[in-house]
Amino acid sequence: MAFDPASLKYDANGLIPCIAQDDDSGEVLMMAWMNADAVARTLETGRVTYWSRSRAAFWVKGETSGHLQHLVELRVDCDRDCLLVRVRQEGPACHTNRRSCFYTVVRDGAEVIVMEPMAATNS
Amino acid sequence: MAFDPASLKYDANGLIPCIAQDDDSGEVLMMAWMNADAVARTLETGRVTYWSRSRAAFWVKGETSGHLQHLVELRVDCDRDCLLVRVRQEGPACHTNRRSCFYTVVRDGAEVIVMEPMAATNS
Repeated sequence: MAFDPASLKYDANGLIPCIAQDDDSGEVLMMAWMNADAVARTLETGRVTYWSRSRAAFWVKGETSGHLQHLVELRVDCDRDCLLVRVRQEGPACHTNRRSCFYTVVRDGAEVIVMEPMAATNS
Repeated sequence: MAFDPASLKYDANGLIPCIAQDDDSGEVLMMAWMNADAVARTLETGRVTYWSRSRAAFWVKGETSGHLQHLVELRVDCDRDCLLVRVRQEGPACHTNRRSCFYTVVRDGAEVIVMEPMAATNS
């Protein structure tokens, strides 16, 4: 069946959540939002492109930071209301310079940070 | 820092997306929604509990199907508006009887199903 981004189920704002997973390690890196055009751009360019809700603009992940997400595979869930992208992530995925946005664990009722920011590179 | 479910950022409907990941394999199994009470119940009971938007009720994953999700670890993302649960999943996570809800890959512009339903068990 041909894939049409318009066939996905978007929320009232025209957005669908997209989970990014490191294709090598399986680590869940982040979750962000796409609209139908961002889905199409991601597939066309191979660079994962979200819709920034705060800036109301396309957000080519890593375009300014250099921390690009190269698309390996895009998957649609059973309800067609969530996406999973397997990616090759350059550097940190998180704006805190950590590899993943999910660096805080709830353990025995307390929040514990389990991941340090990545060392800066000279790229 | 003590963890308070009320400190998370919920959407206009009081919900936060939660990604479930297989703790053994790293496979992303599904994404569903929680409200603050569902987060608290998940931590208290160790059984992952979502909020069903269609039924407007708590949804103890697997309560009727037996396909429980046992909580291994709950993580909060950097923006506090998305959760990740690492789980021990009994049987399929998907209502289609597949291990994961993300069984459809977009490949060369077409949708390809890459996962079969799991065999029925006599549980």
